[in-house]
Amino acid sequence: MNHKEVLLKKIKANQEVVGVLGLGYVGLPLAVTFAKNNIKVIGFEKDTRKADMINRGHNYIADVNDTDLKTIISNNKLQAVTDFSKIADCDAILICVPTPLDKFKKPDMTFMEKACTEIGRYIKPATFVALESTTYPTTTENVLLPIIEKESGLQNGKDFWLAFSPERVDPGNKKYKTENTPKVIGAVNKDGLQIGCTLYQKAIHNLHTVSSPRIAEMVKILENTYRLINISLINEMALLCGKMDINIWEVIEAAETKPYGFQAFYPGPGIGGHCIPLDPFYLEHIAKNYQFDLTMLNTAGHIENLMPHRMTIKITSALNRQQKAINGAKILFMGVAYKADIGDARESPALKIIDEVLQKGGRVYYHDPYVPQVKTNNGHTFTSSTLTDELIRKMDVIVFTTIHKQFDCEAIAARAKLVVDMRNAVNQASDKVYKL
Amino acid sequence: MNHKEVLLKKIKANQEVVGVLGLGYVGLPLAVTFAKNNIKVIGFEKDTRKADMINRGHNYIADVNDTDLKTIISNNKLQAVTDFSKIADCDAILICVPTPLDKFKKPDMTFMEKACTEIGRYIKPATFVALESTTYPTTTENVLLPIIEKESGLQNGKDFWLAFSPERVDPGNKKYKTENTPKVIGAVNKDGLQIGCTLYQKAIHNLHTVSSPRIAEMVKILENTYRLINISLINEMALLCGKMDINIWEVIEAAETKPYGFQAFYPGPGIGGHCIPLDPFYLEHIAKNYQFDLTMLNTAGHIENLMPHRMTIKITSALNRQQKAINGAKILFMGVAYKADIGDARESPALKIIDEVLQKGGRVYYHDPYVPQVKTNNGHTFTSSTLTDELIRKMDVIVFTTIHKQFDCEAIAARAKLVVDMRNAVNQASDKVYKL
Repeated sequence: MNHKEVLLKKIKANQEVVGVLGLGYVGLPLAVTFAKNNIKVIGFEKDTRKADMINRGHNYIADVNDTDLKTIISNNKLQAVTDFSKIADCDAILICVPTPLDKFKKPDMTFMEKACTEIGRYIKPATFVALESTTYPTTTENVLLPIIEKESGLQNGKDFWLAFSPERVDPGNKKYKTENTPKVIGAVNKDGLQIGCTLYQKAIHNLHTVSSPRIAEMVKILENTYRLINISLINEMALLCGKMDINIWEVIEAAETKPYGFQAFYPGPGIGGHCIPLDPFYLEHIAKNYQFDLTMLNTAGHIENLMPHRMTIKITSALNRQQKAINGAKILFMGVAYKADIGDARESPALKIIDEVLQKGGRVYYHDPYVPQVKTNNGHTFTSSTLTDELIRKMDVIVFTTIHKQFDCEAIAARAKLVVDMRNAVNQASDKVYKL
Repeated sequence: MNHKEVLLKKIKANQEVVGVLGLGYVGLPLAVTFAKNNIKVIGFEKDTRKADMINRGHNYIADVNDTDLKTIISNNKLQAVTDFSKIADCDAILICVPTPLDKFKKPDMTFMEKACTEIGRYIKPATFVALESTTYPTTTENVLLPIIEKESGLQNGKDFWLAFSPERVDPGNKKYKTENTPKVIGAVNKDGLQIGCTLYQKAIHNLHTVSSPRIAEMVKILENTYRLINISLINEMALLCGKMDINIWEVIEAAETKPYGFQAFYPGPGIGGHCIPLDPFYLEHIAKNYQFDLTMLNTAGHIENLMPHRMTIKITSALNRQQKAINGAKILFMGVAYKADIGDARESPALKIIDEVLQKGGRVYYHDPYVPQVKTNNGHTFTSSTLTDELIRKMDVIVFTTIHKQFDCEAIAARAKLVVDMRNAVNQASDKVYKL
């Protein structure tokens, strides 16, 4: 048997070992999904603390079911390791490492490149490798492939098979999880696609194959660029509506009655999380290599760059109504997570507004049941305040930045001196409720 | 009884006369919808030829059912007139006149202003007036209202009631017609909203009320700005994909498997018709009055302005493959309507490409079963060629601009020397099929 036949036989017999590199918000749910389907999974995680937690059955990702994790750990279906030489034990390796932007909004490929170096160092023949992390088109073929081949001395298409299959994790989504979200996969060659599908279909309900990794890479970026563009459009429309005395929320609600050709997006203090603010700029980066300017993306970037500043101006304007300055004002931010009902404050626009408000002399408090402590981009740390009547009354202004389900915004607004509502949390604007 | 009570009583007793100003692609379906519901309708149309056709039961709008029109004409439920003094016979007046852009992409409000002058001149007390034409927010209150009040000496809210209720006609849409497309309505005051709803609900299945005309005006523009932005995004992505050797159509098909947060738009030679290329620029116009730049819209405008030129370059590149210049080449355009399966060539990108190709010395032919004759923006007139094997073979390149159902594009491509496919009409790209 050749390597392909060996690997396919193993997968079909359920004897393959799947390695997942990176046990974060993408990798852990993926590892759990495979393990739940009775496939042996090794999770590679550099953070010893996280690996230990997993091995003790302690979950740290909200989208993972605690019982599921405990069960697969006690069944020995999932094991977390910090030792990357165990890659040699794996028949499939799924890369779920971060692909952040650096401070200058350029792709930071170091996690991915290091992962490939480790893979190249330890990979055995007859192994399938897929990248799940979002990256710019051509990465799999032009960045990953040469590193793995050079480090391992193995040959893609003969000794191993490389594919790209983008994660589509939507943190907090109750309906669509890893297993029931259709998965796109594109491989460097046909054998790789066949092997990849044989493997993934054991854990994922629906696969959609495309003809190359670069197509699959572009799919993920198109999805998130679409979101960025539309959020930016509606944010800009909201700012204009503010000037024209038009309630943007009422506009969107009415536009949604159109039964075709419209999808509602909602304005807010800016973009957050680990997809929308990052992924499109991976595309912008590679486009420059083709002498191509993505003008829509660029414009959206301009809008989103300015949103936190514009939100600070909204707070200033609201305070000004009551003849107060931001300097010295007590300001409570309700919600610092980047979206509702999750505990992730990465890239959260609230933190950017807080930094600007601090710079202008505001006295900042925040309340977020999901985020007990937070550190802003400028390095200021805060602890979530307990939401009491006294706290509400003490504040000069309360800013609704992220609305978790448990917030009773109407009740807070009723007791507050002044509210800046960036999320349509309060039904009616008034003298003391200033709406985006 | 006051005027309001008089009018409401009439409407409830089905004794009202509805006047529809402008019997075009919006006004005629609207007039027919009311008349079908046994309401007496007078259609006002300056074009004597069109008015005569209507009165003889001859339909000229594809979205109107021929039998419906004949029936309501023979039942005397609809009468077309050119005499605007008959406005005095109407209890409700629905304005469906064009709101085009002038050559400098500025709103041309003359049709609307003239309509209001005529209304002001002839309106009787106890009349409801609604504008259906797309326009920028504040138009109803700041442009229409003063003209009608000044010309008539009547008072809004007492003698007549003014509202804005945007048309949502999608030419060629088989599922959503005037009556079953939810209708948004916003009136200057509450009585106007009550009267408007009482009237419209007799003909339209679902009404959605908003709190002011300017909200309703913004709703329509948001819907079409959303479309413009997303078409522009995907057009720009398609151009980049062309450079990166990525099939954009395959990307979109795969992205569509995402079960939430994505709506597919498709690239093409550019925007056309009477909504997308126009409506958003009405908003851009009024935004300037608020010292506000709509940067997303502006960027989309840039992309769309350039699309026909970029498409000409695609044709040039394709011909260049076969060592041919555009100068002297025989070029057949398949489809000049602005979208599939309709006969409307207004603002069609095909015409803009044709003008540029002509300027470069191309010898232009076109085939479009829905558009027997066409005049380009530069004033060149053409007659649709019969699609024969001989014609196909004679052409140096065939350009798929608009794909009507009856086109067998694969068969045409098989016989053609060279194809430029701007609509994904042919399955596979090849040496002789050049795809967008």
